[in-house]
Amino acid sequence: MADEPKVVTGLGLAELHRILVRGRDLTEDLLGNITFTEMVLFELTGRIPTANQSRMIDALLVILVEHGMVASVVASRSTYHTAPEAIQGAVAAALLTAGSVHLGSSEYCAKMLVDALPADAKEGDLDKVAGEIVDKYAASKTRVAGIGHRTHAEGDPRAVRLFQIARETEVFGRYCDLLLRVSTLAGDRAGRPLPVNVTGAIGAIALDLGLPWQMAKAFALIGRTLGALAHIGEEIRNPMAQNIDAAIKARLVYEVDAPQ
Amino acid sequence: MADEPKVVTGLGLAELHRILVRGRDLTEDLLGNITFTEMVLFELTGRIPTANQSRMIDALLVILVEHGMVASVVASRSTYHTAPEAIQGAVAAALLTAGSVHLGSSEYCAKMLVDALPADAKEGDLDKVAGEIVDKYAASKTRVAGIGHRTHAEGDPRAVRLFQIARETEVFGRYCDLLLRVSTLAGDRAGRPLPVNVTGAIGAIALDLGLPWQMAKAFALIGRTLGALAHIGEEIRNPMAQNIDAAIKARLVYEVDAPQ
Amino acid sequence: MADEPKVVTGLGLAELHRILVRGRDLTEDLLGNITFTEMVLFELTGRIPTANQSRMIDALLVILVEHGMVASVVASRSTYHTAPEAIQGAVAAALLTAGSVHLGSSEYCAKMLVDALPADAKEGDLDKVAGEIVDKYAASKTRVAGIGHRTHAEGDPRAVRLFQIARETEVFGRYCDLLLRVSTLAGDRAGRPLPVNVTGAIGAIALDLGLPWQMAKAFALIGRTLGALAHIGEEIRNPMAQNIDAAIKARLVYEVDAPQ
Amino acid sequence: MADEPKVVTGLGLAELHRILVRGRDLTEDLLGNITFTEMVLFELTGRIPTANQSRMIDALLVILVEHGMVASVVASRSTYHTAPEAIQGAVAAALLTAGSVHLGSSEYCAKMLVDALPADAKEGDLDKVAGEIVDKYAASKTRVAGIGHRTHAEGDPRAVRLFQIARETEVFGRYCDLLLRVSTLAGDRAGRPLPVNVTGAIGAIALDLGLPWQMAKAFALIGRTLGALAHIGEEIRNPMAQNIDAAIKARLVYEVDAPQ
Repeated sequence: MADEPKVVTGLGLAELHRILVRGRDLTEDLLGNITFTEMVLFELTGRIPTANQSRMIDALLVILVEHGMVASVVASRSTYHTAPEAIQGAVAAALLTAGSVHLGSSEYCAKMLVDALPADAKEGDLDKVAGEIVDKYAASKTRVAGIGHRTHAEGDPRAVRLFQIARETEVFGRYCDLLLRVSTLAGDRAGRPLPVNVTGAIGAIALDLGLPWQMAKAFALIGRTLGALAHIGEEIRNPMAQNIDAAIKARLVYEVDAPQ
Repeated sequence: MADEPKVVTGLGLAELHRILVRGRDLTEDLLGNITFTEMVLFELTGRIPTANQSRMIDALLVILVEHGMVASVVASRSTYHTAPEAIQGAVAAALLTAGSVHLGSSEYCAKMLVDALPADAKEGDLDKVAGEIVDKYAASKTRVAGIGHRTHAEGDPRAVRLFQIARETEVFGRYCDLLLRVSTLAGDRAGRPLPVNVTGAIGAIALDLGLPWQMAKAFALIGRTLGALAHIGEEIRNPMAQNIDAAIKARLVYEVDAPQ
Repeated sequence: MADEPKVVTGLGLAELHRILVRGRDLTEDLLGNITFTEMVLFELTGRIPTANQSRMIDALLVILVEHGMVASVVASRSTYHTAPEAIQGAVAAALLTAGSVHLGSSEYCAKMLVDALPADAKEGDLDKVAGEIVDKYAASKTRVAGIGHRTHAEGDPRAVRLFQIARETEVFGRYCDLLLRVSTLAGDRAGRPLPVNVTGAIGAIALDLGLPWQMAKAFALIGRTLGALAHIGEEIRNPMAQNIDAAIKARLVYEVDAPQ
Repeated sequence: MADEPKVVTGLGLAELHRILVRGRDLTEDLLGNITFTEMVLFELTGRIPTANQSRMIDALLVILVEHGMVASVVASRSTYHTAPEAIQGAVAAALLTAGSVHLGSSEYCAKMLVDALPADAKEGDLDKVAGEIVDKYAASKTRVAGIGHRTHAEGDPRAVRLFQIARETEVFGRYCDLLLRVSTLAGDRAGRPLPVNVTGAIGAIALDLGLPWQMAKAFALIGRTLGALAHIGEEIRNPMAQNIDAAIKARLVYEVDAPQ
């Protein structure tokens, strides 16, 4: 019995008359005194952010909430339309689209940066580290994560703004610095600008906030939960699921192809 | 062509060089200036909350984030353990457990209140409305939503604290008032206390914030997204999925039953 | 220790060198000898179906697999497009749309039938039971589940075909019989045909196969899993996610509305 | 208008009075005449399988249905317990665990085989191709997908049985052959047996059935949908979700750790 594997957590404990969150009393201590934004860093790391850090986290949480009538919210609206009894399913549908193709580059960029410059590494020569990153990607002929943008060749205004806030709030640290150097160096070699894009900026800032690279998508997932809820709310006020179906149907072509 | 059904939204529009959120420029106007908590009400209703309302919303967002090693985060941890490439799936798994049994009573309670006292109804005699609610449930022999608690017969401390904050922030309005009267009246008739529970309080406060009843679970879904992320983060630091499996296996009994 | 709650299952047990399924050896006994269709009833009830029952189950599994470019597969395609690393998420997205609005009527119809005529009830006067059902719905002014169809006023050809197969396979039993009587009686009272629809037929046949009402959607969920996979496969061969986005965008109107 | 992107599908079309599936009438032509197993290959490829191929596909569909009280079905049971109104969410939860760690090796193994020996490649020297695969993995110091097993060092009985059925049904082709050669060669070099495991066998057989590598998990996802439904059905008959919670709680340790 002594050796049976324990189930250990340090996050929360629900007792009969109180709930502890990382050792603090939810009702007595946290509720009414902590903002949700503070709670984000507290839950994820055990640290209550400073006012400056909170402003940065707010920006990371807000930036990906709303993007208009895109595929993720279309999935939510359709799901709500056919399963209104389970709003949680409609929100989950929106989250499931948060995969590697767009948002994933936050994770990949953060991993790339932390692999090249581990959290416990002494401050090194960032230009040298940036060079190693660019060399490594060039050798494997893959695109560097977090830089370049199809539409915004000269700079994604959202990334520019995030870095501006990172500087104002003094969250801007060596990972942001490193990513900018990677961007400059890769652009020089490519002979065209390869500015940091919005998901790259999020990845670097997440690291400078002390998060592990796997949590780089955390802000987007929280933001997208809100975005999905807003679209479900609008779907309730002004249902569009059937018009969306009709829009697709209007361009539908049925062409039976040969067996594969 | 003129009559083709349009796909209308007022929430967001992604243009080439800017993103609009309910008519406002995301990068220029909102980012760096709006907190996530403000964004919640802005996305859901178009209104930027006052500081008082923000404090209330923070409490609603924070209260259901963390509950320890419960089924929803166990589902997230298992999902992450077998599908670490898709953290979004692990978060979605936690959301899918946000159904009718526990959290649903926020929705049902809010619907009950707004059905009895529509948003556009003049201020009425709240005791009379409360009586109608209690009569109606008694007639159908179903439990009134949002009151009573298995463990906290004398009052769920989380509900007490939420109403306290609702009063401090002056969000406390006629729906909170009505629910408290329903609770008192139903308790009087039952001959035992039937205090407002935490999901009931959330439902009433959501209505007093001007949200539709279907959005009463919105705060819990956002909070649970954060909670799932925190447990996934802890799972990465200190993997427990296999110990959880072992704990279940230790009590496993295989009993083949007769065909059904 | 003696009183600790056990975790009991009679479905499966994975031992070191074999896997048991409802007491039978997976590799030695089932694999190669049992069809998936037989496995469906065996897993759900412990009974291996007869050839006739298998033909019926095949029809129930096949009937809802494919419906063209509808919302559920659009959600799958979008999810795959942005998260190709996690095909399981794209399939899950399709399942999440399997809610109350269309498919749910299988469950509701089956529940209605079994509430009126419990599984252990003696064979009664089915016309009398049908009359009680119709009266009950009339009293609560709700539509009877499983009958009537917007498009197929004179009979959903899928329901007709399912009942035909049910008769050929001798699965047709008292629940199918009862639902047809309900349909006739309700139509007579309404003065217009209210034929059994496809989800109603599925619900009645599921009961006549001995399944509990909650499993009436099981066939649809299995079928939809296949349908989603087929659409993901086609999306890989001939990507349409961006054209779907474009179709929606072509009809997009951005109209910022007043705060709610 | 002429250039607007079309939304093309060859899978299904729902017309007013009939549904077409890959050009064939669902009600008139398929229903009652096609088994679900035949439908699997027909939907995925447009080909109706032979009786032999059907037997093989049945084995692939059945083999991963049931594994006892494992994490995926625990997630389903918990989800059903708290959200019984949405059985589709409980099934989706089980699918979300079908990620890279266990099942993924079907995909990776199939991709490895088809990358080394493209579908349109002439029959080559399979030993040479196997050598190239083993060399490539050795060079990158990663484990070859689809071979080796922690528990079954001398051969996973499920893989052995699948290959036996593949031979009996004459589905066994060059991809099965190639994987066995890879297994032998890698084992020789490692100095210990590295037998084909069950997910590897599934990947090779899927290719020999003519499926693309991305569909190698299709059988498991369909099977797991059934498995989840069976566990939900058992949860309804004999609820275990709370005992599962209790089993975890019995080993719970709350240890607040230092901030990260």
